[in-house]
Amino acid sequence: MVLSAFFYNPQGDHRLSWRHPAAPGREIFDLDYYRRLAEVAEEAKIDTIFIADHLGIWDTFESGVAHYANARLEPLSLVGALSAVTKKIGFIVTASTSYNEPYNIARTFASLDHLSKGRVAWNVVTSALEEEARNYGLSANINHATRYQRADEFLDVVTRLWDSWEDGALLINKESGYFADPSKIHYLNHSGTHFKVRGPLNVARSPQGHPLIVQAGSSEAGRELATDHADIHFAVFRNEDEGRRYRTDIDERLVKKGRGPESFLLLPGILPVVASSRQEAEERQAALEELMIDRVSLDLLSSWSAMDLSAYPIDGPMPELPDEAKFDGWRTWLNIVKSETSNAVTIRQLARKIANTGSVPMVSGTVTDVADQMEAWFTSGVADGFNLMFPLLPDDWVNFARSVVPELQRRGLFRTEYEEGTFRDRLQLPRPANHINRH
Amino acid sequence: MVLSAFFYNPQGDHRLSWRHPAAPGREIFDLDYYRRLAEVAEEAKIDTIFIADHLGIWDTFESGVAHYANARLEPLSLVGALSAVTKKIGFIVTASTSYNEPYNIARTFASLDHLSKGRVAWNVVTSALEEEARNYGLSANINHATRYQRADEFLDVVTRLWDSWEDGALLINKESGYFADPSKIHYLNHSGTHFKVRGPLNVARSPQGHPLIVQAGSSEAGRELATDHADIHFAVFRNEDEGRRYRTDIDERLVKKGRGPESFLLLPGILPVVASSRQEAEERQAALEELMIDRVSLDLLSSWSAMDLSAYPIDGPMPELPDEAKFDGWRTWLNIVKSETSNAVTIRQLARKIANTGSVPMVSGTVTDVADQMEAWFTSGVADGFNLMFPLLPDDWVNFARSVVPELQRRGLFRTEYEEGTFRDRLQLPRPANHINRH
Repeated sequence: MVLSAFFYNPQGDHRLSWRHPAAPGREIFDLDYYRRLAEVAEEAKIDTIFIADHLGIWDTFESGVAHYANARLEPLSLVGALSAVTKKIGFIVTASTSYNEPYNIARTFASLDHLSKGRVAWNVVTSALEEEARNYGLSANINHATRYQRADEFLDVVTRLWDSWEDGALLINKESGYFADPSKIHYLNHSGTHFKVRGPLNVARSPQGHPLIVQAGSSEAGRELATDHADIHFAVFRNEDEGRRYRTDIDERLVKKGRGPESFLLLPGILPVVASSRQEAEERQAALEELMIDRVSLDLLSSWSAMDLSAYPIDGPMPELPDEAKFDGWRTWLNIVKSETSNAVTIRQLARKIANTGSVPMVSGTVTDVADQMEAWFTSGVADGFNLMFPLLPDDWVNFARSVVPELQRRGLFRTEYEEGTFRDRLQLPRPANHINRH
Repeated sequence: MVLSAFFYNPQGDHRLSWRHPAAPGREIFDLDYYRRLAEVAEEAKIDTIFIADHLGIWDTFESGVAHYANARLEPLSLVGALSAVTKKIGFIVTASTSYNEPYNIARTFASLDHLSKGRVAWNVVTSALEEEARNYGLSANINHATRYQRADEFLDVVTRLWDSWEDGALLINKESGYFADPSKIHYLNHSGTHFKVRGPLNVARSPQGHPLIVQAGSSEAGRELATDHADIHFAVFRNEDEGRRYRTDIDERLVKKGRGPESFLLLPGILPVVASSRQEAEERQAALEELMIDRVSLDLLSSWSAMDLSAYPIDGPMPELPDEAKFDGWRTWLNIVKSETSNAVTIRQLARKIANTGSVPMVSGTVTDVADQMEAWFTSGVADGFNLMFPLLPDDWVNFARSVVPELQRRGLFRTEYEEGTFRDRLQLPRPANHINRH
């Protein structure tokens, strides 16, 4: 079982968890806070930390600026620092294909892979928010299809830049004066729709060959991108049945592309709420939900449906939602909104439900309850592991690592020591062949 | 006296130092190598490490790929890691204004400033090499004037992004539900020649207010950029007379711009060669020069003069060099080539001279000799300190830190303990006011 400990808000996945008495304050800007999280996860032999990211603050609606935890550290810098104070744990780091240059991303991930001795993965995102677009020269976000086409070409360029130094290219032969073997250093001379990149990279091939590729969007284009390029897919489904359909769909795509399903790890997200009893778990969650502010929940719902709901009566019914196929926003969220509309009579109810529930199913109860449900999903084959989205940090993270992980270890479902080698080695994913000349 | 320990090649500043028996091999990709350099510098209370960078490999001529140490780590990732394993030393990190987005650079430096508790500086470069341009969608490098205009706008946007969160903007008031004070978070709504950026940044204002700005080009446009924006200027001059003229020129520019000269630190580069006797120092340098390969030196000269010299007889005279005012390459190097042409009869001689000498004057001799010359430049006022470009790493770095630094301390010219506070505080540079509304 693969375990990935996730955060976007360093205060936890519940959107207003920053208000909780046990949530961190200004220490979210100190390395020590993250170092402690990493150390706890590493003691538990958790596979990886997963850091999400956005390229702007969430402020389409006024409440975002005042009430949302909009300030955070840039994740690549943070992982640079964390790689120096950890030994074994992996790092999945988010970077956008829409607002970066492939040469810069290829260099940074190759360097982090060297510095961490083979422990980094790139979570590829296309950046769906208009708030992000407007920080990068645009007045609206790039349409969904173009974003994904650009991502596809971006990934092709980055992986070939990683291949531009073959494994044996670096000689450092002081006698002969040959630092490198020119026959093993390759030019891309790439000229595509979005990019023109000559290469080669100025970083020698890194310990994992390629840092792992992670993809985390469940739209049609997201699943295509994932099965084309990714090693790990962060999926969103709400129950085992949905999971089975999801897995079948993914496996069919993989087979069509000539990939064995064993080369691809499917990690659904779950929101673990662990307590000494089911009742206490429910109380913990209720205490978090009380922190929600009505204005924020309404604004969140407006943002995800790309509709200004403040124009509608808050205790009236929800207006019709946009058509997914024509939707340029974040389709995963739109679908979650759609799936919850039947459970809420008014806009206020739907907003609260959505704002508190988050994107992934809650797995709540005692240590045994949580381990049982994880075991069920794992043994039934819908999950190769889990992306753990803790409602409140650091407490839920520390608690999970020290209670649920030992239970999973007792059941023989999870490692008790880190295996040797890189992050890729531990996941038994093959070191990629050099594809520089595939074009 | 401010001391900055510089490297571009992690094997030292001499261009083929990687061939020296004492130079590092594959450990240039390991954090431990850099950690040791940082620890030695920090023990000596050196102000800062300065990491230069290029966005490509030097391969205009074939010899570059085979014989030049073209593979290295990306410096921002490296400094992320080093900030986690050091406490006091500063980091000057190079990033290009031509091949990055201002929002990304503002975020990364603000994050590194938080992670290091106020120890980072940004060395602003405009990337003059065609090898770099061709990795970023272009077929030739951007002309000199446009590069500097873009840099000027880039710096304006980045500093205003740093100002977009005022010092008091972050509230994290759990009771009231106010994470931030919206009246202290600002939009840039910048729409200029090169960039359109809305803001605000998603990182709260960092410990130094602004990470320090460093500029390192001595062309007319470089000096203008430096006196407009920089806190620290890395200058190239060859003797005290040149230095005096340089300082006068810079001071006049500062005064014209309403800046006090005390807000600006001028650090000339020197190449310190320290040994137990003058003769041994000369032998050390001669041993490095023996590592040079004729083909590499000729190709370097061709590159800096933007002329293919392989078409000329190597033992014949040097053809006429391009006019600086129309030169889109690296004007600093062109001037160094020009200044050496009178000392060399043939192309081969000039190439060897240039390739071995480097860009800055050598300060060679015993500990006393080197300290004497540094003291002279410092007390005469031409230098506020030095950018130390060691011929061979790690030996020259370690040797300098353990021999010349104690001598400078004995003379009362250099600190014996780090002062409290940030890098900016130690240099007695004022924390910048918030200029978000200056436009």
